Amino acid sequence: MLIEESIRFYGAKINELLKDLIPPDRNDYLCEPIWHHMRTGGKRVRPALCLITCEALGGNHLEAVNFALAIETMHNMFLIHDDIEDGDTVRRDQPTVWVKYGVANAINAGDYLLACAYKTTLASPISVEKKIKLLQVLTTTYEKTVEGQALDINARAAEDFSVAKYMEMVELKTGYYLACGMVGGAVVSGVSEKVLEKIWMLGKTMGPAFQIRDDLIDLTHGKGRGGVIGSDVKEGKASFLYSYALQVACAEDKKHLREIMLKPRDETTDTDIQWVLDVYNKYGAIQHAQEFAEDLVRQAYKTIDEIPLENKAIFKEIASFMAQRMS
Amino acid sequence: MLIEESIRFYGAKINELLKDLIPPDRNDYLCEPIWHHMRTGGKRVRPALCLITCEALGGNHLEAVNFALAIETMHNMFLIHDDIEDGDTVRRDQPTVWVKYGVANAINAGDYLLACAYKTTLASPISVEKKIKLLQVLTTTYEKTVEGQALDINARAAEDFSVAKYMEMVELKTGYYLACGMVGGAVVSGVSEKVLEKIWMLGKTMGPAFQIRDDLIDLTHGKGRGGVIGSDVKEGKASFLYSYALQVACAEDKKHLREIMLKPRDETTDTDIQWVLDVYNKYGAIQHAQEFAEDLVRQAYKTIDEIPLENKAIFKEIASFMAQRMS
Repeated sequence: MLIEESIRFYGAKINELLKDLIPPDRNDYLCEPIWHHMRTGGKRVRPALCLITCEALGGNHLEAVNFALAIETMHNMFLIHDDIEDGDTVRRDQPTVWVKYGVANAINAGDYLLACAYKTTLASPISVEKKIKLLQVLTTTYEKTVEGQALDINARAAEDFSVAKYMEMVELKTGYYLACGMVGGAVVSGVSEKVLEKIWMLGKTMGPAFQIRDDLIDLTHGKGRGGVIGSDVKEGKASFLYSYALQVACAEDKKHLREIMLKPRDETTDTDIQWVLDVYNKYGAIQHAQEFAEDLVRQAYKTIDEIPLENKAIFKEIASFMAQRMS
Repeated sequence: MLIEESIRFYGAKINELLKDLIPPDRNDYLCEPIWHHMRTGGKRVRPALCLITCEALGGNHLEAVNFALAIETMHNMFLIHDDIEDGDTVRRDQPTVWVKYGVANAINAGDYLLACAYKTTLASPISVEKKIKLLQVLTTTYEKTVEGQALDINARAAEDFSVAKYMEMVELKTGYYLACGMVGGAVVSGVSEKVLEKIWMLGKTMGPAFQIRDDLIDLTHGKGRGGVIGSDVKEGKASFLYSYALQVACAEDKKHLREIMLKPRDETTDTDIQWVLDVYNKYGAIQHAQEFAEDLVRQAYKTIDEIPLENKAIFKEIASFMAQRMS
């Protein structure tokens, strides 16, 4: 089966099992807001990769299903909380949870999703030793993602934001989360600690590569919201391009750039966005970002070569699938 | 050692250990808001009761310290999130975290505390079997408290709020959390499942008893905020008295009562509060609440009698300590 097909197959499975964990029709102020959010979509790629990794390394994917569900619920918890934190009002053409149900219910629904993540992991049909390992993977991922979010929330206002700080932020915010499904699947299959370390490392390069490409898409093709160029500039998002420009721009450009990033979303004009685009081009930020991301992907392939396993072809397939999706 | 002394002793210990888990001087947008909140006080009663229970049942309290810390960090996570959810601007004379650091940092700091709760439990110096049990206790408490909070957030607007719904809400929101420290301490000491069940049951009566007394204090002595009577009415809090009055009042009184509870805090006048107090007196709500709470305390003592253990004196001491604090 091609990896795209596997992802579709296991993703659909995850979608069904999510309904057992969080019944869509339970009327308790929790399941309704959660399903309003979960129905907006998501391809369940990371939980699918968890099951695919487990099988490819010789494990039984049925033993990894609980953890796959945990990843998906934790992911959605982050999305619901992030939407409040970023003040985002729309996600995939639907009002975000806090807009529809209020901030109080949105925070609490997110909290509930995390409880579900731990509950389902604790119910995994595996040995206590493996269960503890999965709970460690889940907790580390949760902790590091929150640490990354803390840097993200406060980055746009920081005067000394830089490429190094950007990388620290996205390694935390996207790296662990990208790897945790594969790590969990590998834990269930019973591989060594050394293999797990390499998979974590893979996240640290693939995650940022993915994020930088995402930053670029905003300036080249525009994001989901009607293909508008420069949403990130409007939101004052601390992108790779922003971090690089702050590092290399002259004092005057730097000052004006920060002013635009700190403006409330509604006050950022099209002229502002064009000015930022021009500055990014002037300093070669876009070109640099592309090269930087390509270099990270090269590092990721190198890490895969170092995984001490015979049957590691799956990681190359996953990396190439991700690299394709990103371009 | 008297129980009050034990609580002070172990509470101070918890305070010190919290600084290792969450360094107060780590400059990362997480520890600062968390310590701004944690410095506002708290006697660390529940984590202290965890250690006291563990020792009293023949366990080594050093093995329960991680879990005691987890309870305290989870508790503070709930307080930080609750303050946003309830729109509370002041806690113990200090601005709440969301007021001082913004909603985004407050949500994220709460999320971080929960990560710390799991991290420290996973690091407990005990067998994997006991560790899994503690993680189950933590997760159940977290899940049920969130479910209770969901009912609380939406109770004031519910037309059919009743004593039964109040009890469901506070059993979830306060019952599990009250018991979880004792349950965790008991798990570490190695008692049977039957004992654990009884301690959970203890929470289901002591928690609501505690909460009803808290509701009464608001109308008799006033709460921390300068001893003002009727803060709960101003906030539209779904108290025992409100639930009872909704059940027994005539249609006209019920309608006006709901109108006052649904008013924004700033628009609730002193005349409104006096009117509510008069209605509560008219229907004997205060008297009924006192009797209801006393009955719950009696049930709690009965549950203690049923604990299948020789050395269960500690639970009577804890119950009597709590009953005293509540009166």
